[in-house]
Amino acid sequence: MKIKNYSLCEVPIQWEERNVTAIKGPGGKWMIPPEAKESMDRSKIGLKGPLKTPIAAGHPSMNLLLRKTFDLYANVRPCVSIEGYKTPYTDVDLVTIRENTEGEYSGIEHVIVDGVVQSIKLITEQASRRIAEYAFEYARNNQRSSVTAVHKANIMRMSDGLFLRKCREVAENYKDVKFTEMYLDTVCLNMVQDPTQFDVLVMPNLYGDILSDLCAGLIGGLGVTPSGNIGANGVAIFESVHGTAPDIAGKDLANPTALLLSAVMMLRHMGLHADAKKIETACYDTIRDKKVLTKDLGGNSKCSEFTTEICRRVQDMD
Amino acid sequence: MKIKNYSLCEVPIQWEERNVTAIKGPGGKWMIPPEAKESMDRSKIGLKGPLKTPIAAGHPSMNLLLRKTFDLYANVRPCVSIEGYKTPYTDVDLVTIRENTEGEYSGIEHVIVDGVVQSIKLITEQASRRIAEYAFEYARNNQRSSVTAVHKANIMRMSDGLFLRKCREVAENYKDVKFTEMYLDTVCLNMVQDPTQFDVLVMPNLYGDILSDLCAGLIGGLGVTPSGNIGANGVAIFESVHGTAPDIAGKDLANPTALLLSAVMMLRHMGLHADAKKIETACYDTIRDKKVLTKDLGGNSKCSEFTTEICRRVQDMD
Ligand SMILES: CC(C)[C@H](C(=O)O)[C@@H](O)C(=O)O
Ligand SMILES: CC(C)[C@H](C(=O)O)[C@@H](O)C(=O)O
Repeated sequence: MKIKNYSLCEVPIQWEERNVTAIKGPGGKWMIPPEAKESMDRSKIGLKGPLKTPIAAGHPSMNLLLRKTFDLYANVRPCVSIEGYKTPYTDVDLVTIRENTEGEYSGIEHVIVDGVVQSIKLITEQASRRIAEYAFEYARNNQRSSVTAVHKANIMRMSDGLFLRKCREVAENYKDVKFTEMYLDTVCLNMVQDPTQFDVLVMPNLYGDILSDLCAGLIGGLGVTPSGNIGANGVAIFESVHGTAPDIAGKDLANPTALLLSAVMMLRHMGLHADAKKIETACYDTIRDKKVLTKDLGGNSKCSEFTTEICRRVQDMD
Repeated sequence: MKIKNYSLCEVPIQWEERNVTAIKGPGGKWMIPPEAKESMDRSKIGLKGPLKTPIAAGHPSMNLLLRKTFDLYANVRPCVSIEGYKTPYTDVDLVTIRENTEGEYSGIEHVIVDGVVQSIKLITEQASRRIAEYAFEYARNNQRSSVTAVHKANIMRMSDGLFLRKCREVAENYKDVKFTEMYLDTVCLNMVQDPTQFDVLVMPNLYGDILSDLCAGLIGGLGVTPSGNIGANGVAIFESVHGTAPDIAGKDLANPTALLLSAVMMLRHMGLHADAKKIETACYDTIRDKKVLTKDLGGNSKCSEFTTEICRRVQDMD
């Protein structure tokens, strides 16, 4: 067990590093290694870098296994336009809140007869209510004024219908937050025409997978978009959603923004708001000034130069 | 039975007008009225305006009922940037080809126990092969160079896996067309960052519903996006995908572009390429010139003025 203290930005965190690569447990079931599980169970908070799921027969997606192991039921992805990083859109400021445990991700599939396959989308009252409550709480606690439930209840009348009904019921308890509902296809259409009309969006698992990537695209892609997976009782894992970029691995070229902003989300989750604000400001300021940027952000600095610049700005604030 | 001859643009079509609003057939099953069914069975081609599904218990979506009744298995939506109609994107020129009969639209849903619902996504080898073949034929016949299969086979390994396998198999027979595969979420991300990288996209039902609306948004919305539902043996129904806009009904304010461009698709489908080209050109020229435009296109002309202008241009070409 390695324990390190990073004090450059003076954030009161004691880090434990754990390898989460799945192992085959007793009975042949894939599981998170016990040391990682134990650390998470104790600290309740994780910050996860991009992971590559090993190519092994039956190996589960590492992301899915982590979400499942710790019942991380809410996937939260804020998408905020970054000043100085030009995309076709400005003033985007929305959050997708995705049900993270069921829906199309149930993993239940069958061959009915040769050439006919069914996948089961599972929607429960409990998980729908839980995510709806999370979304409204999030809106209230983050000074956001509206929640949109995203669905296809015109097609999946029972499953999305149940999800939608729970959203409506929960909305009744949050009269201070505006509630609207919209078909997923209509959301996609409206989103690319004017994303500023959206605030908090809540939706079943697959729709969240799609919409969160779409929205990330609007503000510059996965390189700048943070993400949090939230469970009950404060448990949470924050992560950058982009891949491992093996082509630039070890070359000091990666853009750490998504992971850094995920860490900022983590700090806020832990109540360390002042620290979060400082690092976030330093990061945004660095991007806006355009002097020290990684290649994908349009500059020619190394990853280490970019992070050093951010740290310098944080220290100047103290 | 009303038969009219519209000859303003001299297109050799004899129109039959039919009301398709579903009726309750013997045994209480909703069905297309026999006169409409008979007309379609004979002529094989339909042009459909926006329809409002009546609000009646158990009434099926009119769109879905038509697709089902005539086994319209391919939903084809070209999205092409329109010169003079500004959006954040230029040079979009892609086609979404959506499997139109199964997938998440199976309509099979159950309550397992109280508060637990499942919807079944049905993927068959036959429908997957059929839509993949349609996509590759379309690419070849329309001088398009690549087909991208859109899927989530990392999550729905069996169902989307089957769909993807069929696409791969069919691709083997079309070595002149480039084949790629991409996760749906990745497509959404890449689409809003640079839609010009896409050409023909083929996908299961729900993904097509989403992506086609997203892509329509990139070029200006459903008001300018045509659509065709293609079945076997030349059967096809072309339609505008937008709603009935009850707020402006009867006021001569609607933008007919989507329906007109759907009619152009229909003419091409019927082999009337010269007529299609003329009307399409007249429509695009009218929009580019910006002199006679409906309100939603940024002008202040009436629907009738806009169409008269298009007809005038067509006649000038003769
Ligand atoms: C990697 C993959 C399993 C995952 C998903 O589909 O949920 C990813 O796309 C995400 O959004 O976190
Ligand atoms: C009206 C609705 C049933 C339909 C669908 O979901 O397929 C529509 O969104 C479409 O894309 O044609």
